[in-house]
Amino acid sequence: MSEGLDPWATTLVSDYEEVMERFGIRRIDEKLMEVFGDSPFFRRGVIFAHRDLERVADAVISGREYAVITGIKPTGPYHLGTFQTAKEFVYFQKRSTASSAVFAIADVEAWEDNGQFFDVSREVAVDNVADLLAAGLDPERAYIYFQSREARVQRMAVIAARGITMATMRAVYGERGIGLYLSALIQVGDILLPQHPDLGGPKPTVVPVGIDQDPHIRLTRDVAGRMRSRYGLVEPSSTYHLLMRSLLGDKKMSKRDPMSFISMADDPDLAYRKVMNAFTGGRDTAEEQRRLGGDPTRCVVYELARFHLYDDEELKEMWDKCVSGERLCGPCKREVAERMALFLREHRRRKEEVRPQAEKIVEAAAESLNSGW
Amino acid sequence: MSEGLDPWATTLVSDYEEVMERFGIRRIDEKLMEVFGDSPFFRRGVIFAHRDLERVADAVISGREYAVITGIKPTGPYHLGTFQTAKEFVYFQKRSTASSAVFAIADVEAWEDNGQFFDVSREVAVDNVADLLAAGLDPERAYIYFQSREARVQRMAVIAARGITMATMRAVYGERGIGLYLSALIQVGDILLPQHPDLGGPKPTVVPVGIDQDPHIRLTRDVAGRMRSRYGLVEPSSTYHLLMRSLLGDKKMSKRDPMSFISMADDPDLAYRKVMNAFTGGRDTAEEQRRLGGDPTRCVVYELARFHLYDDEELKEMWDKCVSGERLCGPCKREVAERMALFLREHRRRKEEVRPQAEKIVEAAAESLNSGW
Repeated sequence: MSEGLDPWATTLVSDYEEVMERFGIRRIDEKLMEVFGDSPFFRRGVIFAHRDLERVADAVISGREYAVITGIKPTGPYHLGTFQTAKEFVYFQKRSTASSAVFAIADVEAWEDNGQFFDVSREVAVDNVADLLAAGLDPERAYIYFQSREARVQRMAVIAARGITMATMRAVYGERGIGLYLSALIQVGDILLPQHPDLGGPKPTVVPVGIDQDPHIRLTRDVAGRMRSRYGLVEPSSTYHLLMRSLLGDKKMSKRDPMSFISMADDPDLAYRKVMNAFTGGRDTAEEQRRLGGDPTRCVVYELARFHLYDDEELKEMWDKCVSGERLCGPCKREVAERMALFLREHRRRKEEVRPQAEKIVEAAAESLNSGW
Repeated sequence: MSEGLDPWATTLVSDYEEVMERFGIRRIDEKLMEVFGDSPFFRRGVIFAHRDLERVADAVISGREYAVITGIKPTGPYHLGTFQTAKEFVYFQKRSTASSAVFAIADVEAWEDNGQFFDVSREVAVDNVADLLAAGLDPERAYIYFQSREARVQRMAVIAARGITMATMRAVYGERGIGLYLSALIQVGDILLPQHPDLGGPKPTVVPVGIDQDPHIRLTRDVAGRMRSRYGLVEPSSTYHLLMRSLLGDKKMSKRDPMSFISMADDPDLAYRKVMNAFTGGRDTAEEQRRLGGDPTRCVVYELARFHLYDDEELKEMWDKCVSGERLCGPCKREVAERMALFLREHRRRKEEVRPQAEKIVEAAAESLNSGW
């Protein structure tokens, strides 16, 4: 990777400020907080940066239509890192009065990147969609599709390809096979799909992603800019959340390394044990910690609470008591591990309720267009 | 181009033998002539080489199904060079009892290579399809489609992409933009479409092309080989015809240079004048020609007669009288020019009859799938 962000890697971004500076990504400011401050992700700085989010904020304020688009590569269950995106997707749907919540099941990417056949993706997708519904998505106001069966997305990939040199592809994505490049073009098609005439035409669109996905955003904004005169496309906006770290504290939470993450499908007891083994910001001894306090900025356990488990007040108390040395890692972990188990148990219960609905949605998406291959 | 054949260039192949040797393309032999010798293209050596045509010959002999696939880039009317492919397509359809004649209107290639919008391609395609019908195609036993609206083709492009390295793409096609590479993958999808389950599944397929299109054939055969275990695909067969030379005798007949060719849409009087100005195999003076004879192997006028205008007997007479010095270029040109004008007038008449049918076919193809973009 020549430019420092790799959407297919498992490395963690070490210096967010440097990356933002280099790529012209901006911090969430006060004015945006007035619109989106109702969300814990924004309030807690989990979503910390954006491109052109003002365009979506204006739409929210004036009650005009906007779209939200995201997706998942269906190579396994959601984990806490990817589930963050699902929650943001649901949030932006709730803030919109319109029905432009568009969700891509990235079976083309699963094929190009992992060699996973489309029919396997279809099986896995049921679980992914159930997670999405359990997270609160209103399926009546959403469009969920498979990349391999969305001709409009593929056609936009074809349109976008003209005028992109291989030098650009290499600069944005590094040296790859033609399959991953094609997968990237398909993602451009995904991100622009909400602006297709069939879906109501050009409109502001927000793409909530982890900051490592910014190469896709940049490429899509370039394409949309070039296509503006013909298709009237609006450059998509984006929000960026911090990448959840591995439970071991090093890399980002990644499906490629099962020990690094808690899956939404994990047994709650297993998840409990994973939290108990997680990396913290504690000192070497209890005595030292009481004296100097812990460091929540380094602590994965604090991160779990911040992203998924605690409300604002609880989180503030956790922070204060940690840095003051009042709260030690042992009892803290036990408390968070219990909350984690509860969270997963509750999610699993909701998921069971919506699973038949998820099966229907996936079946309909997989049967669209035509059969075979 | 690192390997000597460039499907997007206007250069002429100078040494067919060398190219055949290098890429493992074989001559049409006696055994194949027993099956296909009813066709003037085969008899006259216009179609001179092939890959795996035995597979199709066996199907013809045993009455089993086989498919023929070709297409056109709809950036202008057919000319005598591309029309050769159309005639071969019609021939292979007539030899088949089944309905697997598949024709791609390559609007994706027109976009990637020429920046021509899909709606423009749609307009031009009416004329192309009318040419095809006038050439004798039975539309009841053919499937005619736009690349941009064929999801099965696009999906096969996506499937094919995995496992092709950029090194391979560069070796086969040279250094190109991502758009032309994508267009090449779409062509792989075109060539394999007749084997899609919706079209009756795996079967022998013949792709009649000019030899400069062999890179597409090689890439597709590689892909089909890799896909055999999963999709049961049969490696497509191909036939190769000589490239028609420019009327000026240098490069191949090409749409990119209007002075080099006779278009099927040319006014017959203009075509007459073009033949009168064409490059021949004549000597410097009439006296010299009477003494030494002419050289039909270098003569573009002879080529016109051989590809499109004369029957076997007439052609043999033309050759004999040319090499003996009995037939001089002036009267010969006049005769061929008149036949050319007649040929175009007759074609135009048939075209007028089938135009409403062509309009209906194109409209149906363009309305399939979904709208927009």
